[in-house]
Formats: sequence, structure tokens, C-alpha cells
Amino acid sequence: MASIKRRKITVVGSGFTGATTALMTAQKELGDVVLVDIPNNEDPTKGKALDILEAGPVQGFDARITGTSNYADTADSDVVVITAGIPRKPGMSRDDLISTNAGIMRSVTKEIVKYSPECFIIVLTNPVDAMTYAVFQEAGFPKSRVIGQSGVLDTARFNTFVAEELNVSVEDVQGFVLGGHGDDMVPMLRYSSVGGIPVSKLIPEKRLQEIVERTRKGGGEIVGLLGNGSAYYAPAASIVQMVEAIVKDKKRILPAIAYLEGEYGYSDIYLGVPTIIGGAGLEKIFELELTDEEKADLDKSADSVKTVMKAL
Amino acid sequence: MASIKRRKITVVGSGFTGATTALMTAQKELGDVVLVDIPNNEDPTKGKALDILEAGPVQGFDARITGTSNYADTADSDVVVITAGIPRKPGMSRDDLISTNAGIMRSVTKEIVKYSPECFIIVLTNPVDAMTYAVFQEAGFPKSRVIGQSGVLDTARFNTFVAEELNVSVEDVQGFVLGGHGDDMVPMLRYSSVGGIPVSKLIPEKRLQEIVERTRKGGGEIVGLLGNGSAYYAPAASIVQMVEAIVKDKKRILPAIAYLEGEYGYSDIYLGVPTIIGGAGLEKIFELELTDEEKADLDKSADSVKTVMKAL
Amino acid sequence: MASIKRRKITVVGSGFTGATTALMTAQKELGDVVLVDIPNNEDPTKGKALDILEAGPVQGFDARITGTSNYADTADSDVVVITAGIPRKPGMSRDDLISTNAGIMRSVTKEIVKYSPECFIIVLTNPVDAMTYAVFQEAGFPKSRVIGQSGVLDTARFNTFVAEELNVSVEDVQGFVLGGHGDDMVPMLRYSSVGGIPVSKLIPEKRLQEIVERTRKGGGEIVGLLGNGSAYYAPAASIVQMVEAIVKDKKRILPAIAYLEGEYGYSDIYLGVPTIIGGAGLEKIFELELTDEEKADLDKSADSVKTVMKAL
Amino acid sequence: MASIKRRKITVVGSGFTGATTALMTAQKELGDVVLVDIPNNEDPTKGKALDILEAGPVQGFDARITGTSNYADTADSDVVVITAGIPRKPGMSRDDLISTNAGIMRSVTKEIVKYSPECFIIVLTNPVDAMTYAVFQEAGFPKSRVIGQSGVLDTARFNTFVAEELNVSVEDVQGFVLGGHGDDMVPMLRYSSVGGIPVSKLIPEKRLQEIVERTRKGGGEIVGLLGNGSAYYAPAASIVQMVEAIVKDKKRILPAIAYLEGEYGYSDIYLGVPTIIGGAGLEKIFELELTDEEKADLDKSADSVKTVMKAL
Repeated sequence: MASIKRRKITVVGSGFTGATTALMTAQKELGDVVLVDIPNNEDPTKGKALDILEAGPVQGFDARITGTSNYADTADSDVVVITAGIPRKPGMSRDDLISTNAGIMRSVTKEIVKYSPECFIIVLTNPVDAMTYAVFQEAGFPKSRVIGQSGVLDTARFNTFVAEELNVSVEDVQGFVLGGHGDDMVPMLRYSSVGGIPVSKLIPEKRLQEIVERTRKGGGEIVGLLGNGSAYYAPAASIVQMVEAIVKDKKRILPAIAYLEGEYGYSDIYLGVPTIIGGAGLEKIFELELTDEEKADLDKSADSVKTVMKAL
Repeated sequence: MASIKRRKITVVGSGFTGATTALMTAQKELGDVVLVDIPNNEDPTKGKALDILEAGPVQGFDARITGTSNYADTADSDVVVITAGIPRKPGMSRDDLISTNAGIMRSVTKEIVKYSPECFIIVLTNPVDAMTYAVFQEAGFPKSRVIGQSGVLDTARFNTFVAEELNVSVEDVQGFVLGGHGDDMVPMLRYSSVGGIPVSKLIPEKRLQEIVERTRKGGGEIVGLLGNGSAYYAPAASIVQMVEAIVKDKKRILPAIAYLEGEYGYSDIYLGVPTIIGGAGLEKIFELELTDEEKADLDKSADSVKTVMKAL
Repeated sequence: MASIKRRKITVVGSGFTGATTALMTAQKELGDVVLVDIPNNEDPTKGKALDILEAGPVQGFDARITGTSNYADTADSDVVVITAGIPRKPGMSRDDLISTNAGIMRSVTKEIVKYSPECFIIVLTNPVDAMTYAVFQEAGFPKSRVIGQSGVLDTARFNTFVAEELNVSVEDVQGFVLGGHGDDMVPMLRYSSVGGIPVSKLIPEKRLQEIVERTRKGGGEIVGLLGNGSAYYAPAASIVQMVEAIVKDKKRILPAIAYLEGEYGYSDIYLGVPTIIGGAGLEKIFELELTDEEKADLDKSADSVKTVMKAL
Repeated sequence: MASIKRRKITVVGSGFTGATTALMTAQKELGDVVLVDIPNNEDPTKGKALDILEAGPVQGFDARITGTSNYADTADSDVVVITAGIPRKPGMSRDDLISTNAGIMRSVTKEIVKYSPECFIIVLTNPVDAMTYAVFQEAGFPKSRVIGQSGVLDTARFNTFVAEELNVSVEDVQGFVLGGHGDDMVPMLRYSSVGGIPVSKLIPEKRLQEIVERTRKGGGEIVGLLGNGSAYYAPAASIVQMVEAIVKDKKRILPAIAYLEGEYGYSDIYLGVPTIIGGAGLEKIFELELTDEEKADLDKSADSVKTVMKAL
């Protein structure tokens, strides 16, 4: 019998980012949400899912939200978001971090692919370019169905700082970044505007550079303030924007970490570029002309990604 | 006793645009809405207000919506929107139209000012630049509290056509216009972008000019299709965006018809320019450098406004 | 390739109710909208669709909205709403009205079924019980996929009047009706409450009866005020709530005009009853115990529907 | 000059509940948010505020969100929410917990009152009845301006479980509770319904009692699952619903912890009762007739509150 099913979104990792992603996905009624974590962490995962579910009657959203450690519960997901992974611990080398998280990506991806062979995967785990690549390799999905998040968040931070600087609505700030996350970010100030007015006409060069620097260090700023842990509200919101773009086939123009096959002169690498995200996942990469300086910055960003990838 | 009051928004004119403005204001819970029209038209005004009110339980909005012909009911409004006026009828000269609508503006404004001496006024009645001027003169309000709408609508149309052309989300198109409404619009293609990417990099020059032309004639296109009447959904949405910017003190950067005192080289004229709209009404005008061509277009637009104003 | 498609909702009839339904469907981003009317009325239909589309950039909704007279454009709709039909004209007998609108139902349904054999159909055209039956017969669909709207609207009106009477939020009023539309409505005051408190504890019996009477005549009240035409905001909102319940598989408990096969003692008749509306359409009918008075009222309502059906 | 200001909401305590309250307040654009905590915890408070702020560009909300330990930053708040307080630690007696939290209430209230003498205060800290009383005493505000939250949350949990049991939308479940929080809750099943249908007609008595029991233990269920900490999503949503009711003068009918002066036979006590919450705070208490059993339960609940109050 004809029947319309709710979309289904799985969030892997029930830490703060994962749980906040589940909340925001439910608030937007994008579909039912499965929050999945390791068996060791199953009860807290169930607890967070239940707590979010109980917010539904008050906030007016309808969604089944399930906490589980059993990937069978994720079956036939439309979109799977990966937030799982460990943060760097004291005494841990960078390479150890990378190989640990890459291992997590591979085991998680196996499970995802097994139960949702047609899904779209969005990766948030850091270092995100390399982790997205690891997922892509393991999944064996076409590149349109494995995407990483970083540019939406970097842009959100840039927009926040510009809006604050000018005391205008964040709704009217349009930032633009390329390349890697954080330090490796390539801000495209030429393409950044406020209500359509180029940002460089409104903010002096020196102050603008400070804002760019603050954006680059945006993740670290939050880590420094929190003292214990890292940002999760803005990261979760960023992922959910990508999920929404896919689930509603919005064809949003968003910066995303995409698999490149010659674009911008790079191949076999995941790197942050402007894309169209819609019902077919990553539907298009925009290839922009870059100035020499921008290209140099992007090269640096790509080198940095490659270095990490070698550690895989 | 301390008490928080809902905002109050009055909409003058209960035609399609006025009623749709009332609906969209209520949907956003911006405040209570008073829909006011002439005594002759009081019953239909009450009917539309009641019909909108009855949609509230279903759509989940709380707002008192009142239809009336008695301006006492509009007392202490925070924002008053003027949509009243007559369309040009066959055999009517342009000057007759202007003087008739200017008369309506004056009598309506008298009532508004009498009952809401602290309100913000937004004018939509055509020809909007001249009508906003007439309201400004009659009200005796500071210029920050009398604003006209045209650029939000022109931009919305431009954005719609660009999004359709590229098959991308309208959320990511950022158009930019200056000057008068419709034919007198000065499109700033330099400042128009799609996901931050200049529109000229994505759409060939010739096609872009066709889109600009379609935008200029956007109101006429709807008039032609409807056969009887003119657009009201997008115009109402445009006004409501301005109302929201004021009521929520959003400090949005929006094109608005503002009173100029030297900006762009013009004085004592209402003309479409980029502004900040917030809790203090029109809080700022952005003065951009124009190319010779843009300046020439804007001069033409200003001349056109002045010609209309002379008819007042 | 895996790809997620937007839902598609077709609205038949581009009058005020149809166009407002298209607007509200787009505002909620329930899917793309096709507004279809007869060839004679194609241009105004296109005009309204375009006007709504142009409101998208301002209101922040993404949806393709198409006006057409070609049912091929409605292909593969998930839900089809029928608002088409003529109002009673002076000198027209009731039977003439019924047979004219039934004819419209049949021709419209043929087209719908041809292009969207798996869709759900919601009927609003009056007299709605009989018209839903006509559509059901013509479509040959299972009863779960052909539903009529009247109770959501009647309840919304009742809730509005109760909220106004008590000066409380409409969000907290829960009315309940059975039976036919308007005069034939069977209000279940026992099951009507305000914040959970039975309405009879809060409003004196006499006043409550006045509110019930006003609800019964709710459509007529608007017709009387408008002078020319009938309500469309609240009716459109009511339909869209049903569309949303299906498209998001919400399993809402809503009063709906359903095909009865023994429920409440009636068979082969469409009548207003409490139901569950979800992704499989009308998923369940709640059969409540009625008092003798309620049963008598419902019998009267059913008789009234049967009389109309005989005119088919 | 006339100017419209955003509302201002202060949230005291930047733990999970406080931060989530700040997020949800910002998401609804109810006003600017100040998140305040002790100087010791100032940096994490700033970090959370900044992280939420950075989610704004993505989620489309405009709000200034400030983290601080300086109450001067809370000046002229419209509503202040108190989430501060310590949880019971191992080895701590119940009385110690109460006196510690009461001390926190008093010192926090002093600061609130100093800077926002006209504000409304909503208390969430446990044991919430007694803590609300402590705030009321310290503030010296009229009873309409000091309210406690518990019933919205208890109801939300009940509604969640009923919706799950029946597989229907939570939007259509209307629970009703009186009395204290959790164990002391008095469920009013007579006044609980699903789409207007009494819940007792839909769920067998025995199963319903299990659901009531699960609701009573709802907070403990989450604590048990999380292992470390307690619920915060649904509690935050519940507070924000009350904030919204005040800030938008919604006149919602919500269960709230109110100061009683003879209602239900109690005096000089804060207890959960059905109320109207609007722009004047707690505008009305509904006094319902109770069955003997309900009255006995409510007495037990009141006794429990008094016992705690004695520990003050």
C-alpha cells in the first residue's frame, strides 16, 4: 500500500556534538533520529535520546528519537552523520590521534554501509579532511555520498564576528571560505559581503585581518574558554544545515569537504570547496579562479591535508 | 504593575496586500494586528481579520487580529503599514492617480499620527517614493520613522529568477538594487552574488541582462498574468520583513526608500538606498561608491521620482 | 543513483483557497507545489504561483511553485488537494450546485488518478461529504487515500471563539466535533477542554451554546461579512495541516471526513469522525461511545449527507 | 527618540540546563540572552555563550548572547531564569542540600533584584517548590512575578509516554498534572486526553498506571541512564515555554509552581497548580474541584513541600 515514510537520520557518536545534532534535527522535523554509540556508552546514549524526545511535546516537534548501540536500529537511514572519535589527550602524538580516529571511522563505516547501503554520509570527526577520506575509502560509495563538514562552521564564525563588529544582523553577512578547517582555512574576502556590500568596504583591512585570525582560531577560542571540551552548538548546527539540504533537496550552495578529481588542480584528496548540496548529496563543485595568493594558501591547505592523510 | 505587552502592528488597507500582510505578521507572532479600512469596507475588513484569526489554532499562532474602520482601534501601534490607495483605472491620467493617492496618504496619516504618535510607518502604496514623501510631510515624524518599501521586493524577484536559472536554493542568492521601483530600479550586479560567488561568474552577461529586465518588469508580469489586480504575496512578505526588522530590532541591511539629505548627492527626496533597519527604524544609510553608469542610472531614477513628486 | 526527492503536492483550483493552500504548503516546505486550474484560468493560476514563488526569498522557503492547466505537470504527486468547484449562484437550485460540482469532481479525479496513481487525495469542495464520496467512487482508491476536510476547520473556529471568550491562548484550547460541516456539525463538548480543563467548567452553559451556534454558522459569518466570496485563510490552514500529517507521517489525531464501513452504525457514507492521519493516509477511525443526544445529532448529520448524496 | 528594544532574558547558571535554555531562547528569538554564573566559572560560561552565538548564522536567529559573571550585565532583564544550584553529592544529607541551594537562591536573587527590579523570575532549581519560595521571600516581588517550573516538564514526559504507547503524534496528547515535582506529582487522568478523547478510553487502567509511575520517576530514569548528571533538554524546553508565554503575553494555560493564598485550601506555600501565564506573569490560578483521592494526593504533595520548607 502506498505510504509516506519519515526520513531517517542516524547520528554516530552521542557526545555533546552528536546529541545536539540529534536535538536540532528533531527540532526541524527532518525525520526520525537514531543516536548510536558504543555498547559501553549505550545507557547515556539512551538517556540523551529520551531527554530530547521528552522536549518534543513542549517544542512542538514530532520525531522518534532512539538511543542505541545496535547498528541494526540505523537500518535504511537516509543520512548518517559521523561525530564519533576521540579528542587529543595529553601525551598522545598527533599521528596516534589520527590513526585511532581513522580506525573508528573504518569500523563505524562498515556498520553504516551494512545497514544503510544507499545513505549519504557527513563526517565531522577531526582531522575532518582525512577522516572523510577514510570513510570514503571504507564505504566504497560514490563521492557524492561522502562529504565532510568544516566550511559551514568556519563561515558561521566569520559571519558572527563581522555582524558583531558592524552591529548588524547575522542574517545579512555572507562569508566565504575555502580549504581546510581552522588554521588551514582560506578566507575569500573578495567574496565576503554584508547585505551585498563587500566586507572590505565596511571594515578596515587591519581589523578584517584580525577577524580572519579569530575565525582561524575559532575552535581553539572555545576550547580555551571551556577548559574541558570543545564547541558543539555551532558545529551541530552546521551539520544539520547540510542534512537539511540533502533531506529537503534544497540545492544549497555550501562550502563542504569534497573529493577532488582535478578541481583546483588537486586529485584524490578531500578538501573544502564551494559546492551544491541537494537530494543527490554533493551535486556540484564550483571551481573559482583564484588569485596567486589564494592559490598559494589553498596549496598550503592541501599540503596540510596530505600530511595528515599520510599518517593514515 | 510590571507587565509585558505584545507589540501592535496596524495595516492600513484591507485589500489583498493588506490582508496578506496581516496574515504573515500574525504567522510570525510579531504582535497583535489591526487591519483598518474605510467605513464603506468595514465588513469585509472584519471578515478577513476573522478568517485569519481562525487560522491561528491550526497554524499555531497567537495574535489578536482585528478588522475595523475606526482608527481609535489602532491606538499605540508600534508599526503602521500603509497599503491603501487606488490602482490606475482606464481613462485616469497618471497625475490624477498620484493626486488621488496622495490625498489618501494625507488623510490616513492624520489618523495614524493622531493615535500612534510614536509609531514607525512603512509605505507600500504606489508610486511609492512619492507616496512615502507625502506621508513624511503629513506626519511630521523624523525621517527614521517613515520608510518606503520597494527594494526588498525587487531583490526578491531578482533572487527568484537567478535561483531558477541556476537551479539552486533561493536562500543562497543575494541580489542588490538601488533607486526606484520597477523600471527605475538600478540593479547592482557587482554586488549580487550566489553563495558568495559573483553572479556574473555564473550567468552569462546576456542572460543576466534578461533577468534584470524581467525583474524591472516583475510587477507588470504578475499584473499581466492575473488579468485583474496585481501581486500581493511577495509584496506582503517584503513589508513583513521590514516590520520584523523593526519590531525585533534586528538591524537588517535592507534596501529601503529613505529620505535623503545629501546622500548620493540628492536632497529632500525619498529614494531607494541600502539601509540598516532596526528598533529605531531606519538607522543608517550606506553610501556606496558608484560607477559612472550606476550614477547615471540612479540620476535617472531620482529624476523620475522628482517628476512624480511635482505632481503632488 | 540514490537521490532524495522533495515531496510534491498538487492543489486543484487556484481560487483564494487554492492559492492560500499553495502559499502555506510552501511556507512549511512540505514539498514542491503545483497549482492547477482549467485552461481558461491558466494565466491567473501562473500569476499566483509566481507571486508566491517570489515571496520565497523573503520568507526563507525553498519550493518550486508551478501554475498550470496541464495535469501532466502534476505527475507523481504525493498528495492532491481538491479545492475546485463553483459556489452557489443566485437562482441555482441546490441540486444543480451538487450535480455541477460532482461533475467537476469526476473530471478532476480522472486527471489526478491518471498522473498520480499512488497519491492521497484531500477534498475541500462543498458539500464536502458528498464531494469526497464522488471523488472516492471515481478514483477507485482505497478509502485510506481519499479524505475530506471539515472538522479541522470547525474545530479551529470553535477554539478561536473559546480562546477569545476566556482571553487565553488558542494553543491551549482543544475542541472536538463530529459529523458534517457547519449546520450538521455535532459538537462534543464533553471532549472539549481548555488546558485540559473541561470547557463546561469554564464557560456557562448558555454562553457555550452561543459559541457552538456561532461555530455552526462560522462559514456563513465570514460570507456575510465579506459580501462577496467565502473564507479561505482558515480553510487553507486546515487542509495544510492534513497534508503535513500525511507528508511527515505525523499520525495526528484529526477529525476528518472518512468512508465508513459500519463505524458508528453507518455504511457506505462519508462522514466526519475522529481519525489518525499519517503516512498511510487515514490510518484509523476512533469509534467513541455516544450519548443518546449525540447519536441523534449524528444521525441527523448522516441523514443530511445522504440526502445530498442522493442528488448525485 | 522612539525605539523598540529587544526583550532581555537572563539565565542564571551555565550548566547544561542553563546553556540549553539559552540556546532555545535564542532559537525562538525571544530576546537577547545573558548567561551568568559564578566568577570561578566565567570562562566556560563565556565559551558556551559564544558557541551558541556562532550557531546563529546557521540556524537563522538574531540574538546577542553574552556569558558573564557580572550581574551588571543582566541589568533590565525582562525575565530571569534560575537554574543555578548544586546536585546532591554522595554523603550529603538532604537538609544540607536544601540549605546550600537556598543560600544560592538568596544570593542570586539579591543580584537579580538589584539590577532588574521589574523582572519576572522563573525558578528551576530543586527542590523547586521550596527554592521558589526562598526566591520569593528574598525578592520581595509580588507573587505574580515569581514562578517555579515543574508541571510543564512532568506533563511533557507524560505526553511523550502516551504518544509512544498509542503511536500517535505528541502534538495531540494533553496531559494534566497538579502538585509537586516527580514523586509528589498528582496526575489528573480525568483531565488528560488524546485528540480530545479521554486517555482512559484509549489505554487500559493498568497500563495507564504504569505510565503515571514512569512519569513520576521520569527525572530519575534519565539520571539512571546518564549515570552522571540529570536531564536538561526537556527541562530547558519547559522553562523556555514559560519564558515565551510571558515575553509574548500569550496567556498560556500551563501548570506552574505558584504562591497560594487559600487556593485549594493552602496558604503561604508554593505548589504546582494550573495557571495562566502571560505578560503580567502568573495572571491567574484555576481552582478545580478535586475528588477525595486527588485531594488526598495533593495534601500529601503539600506536606512534602512543607517538610522541605521547614528545612529552610
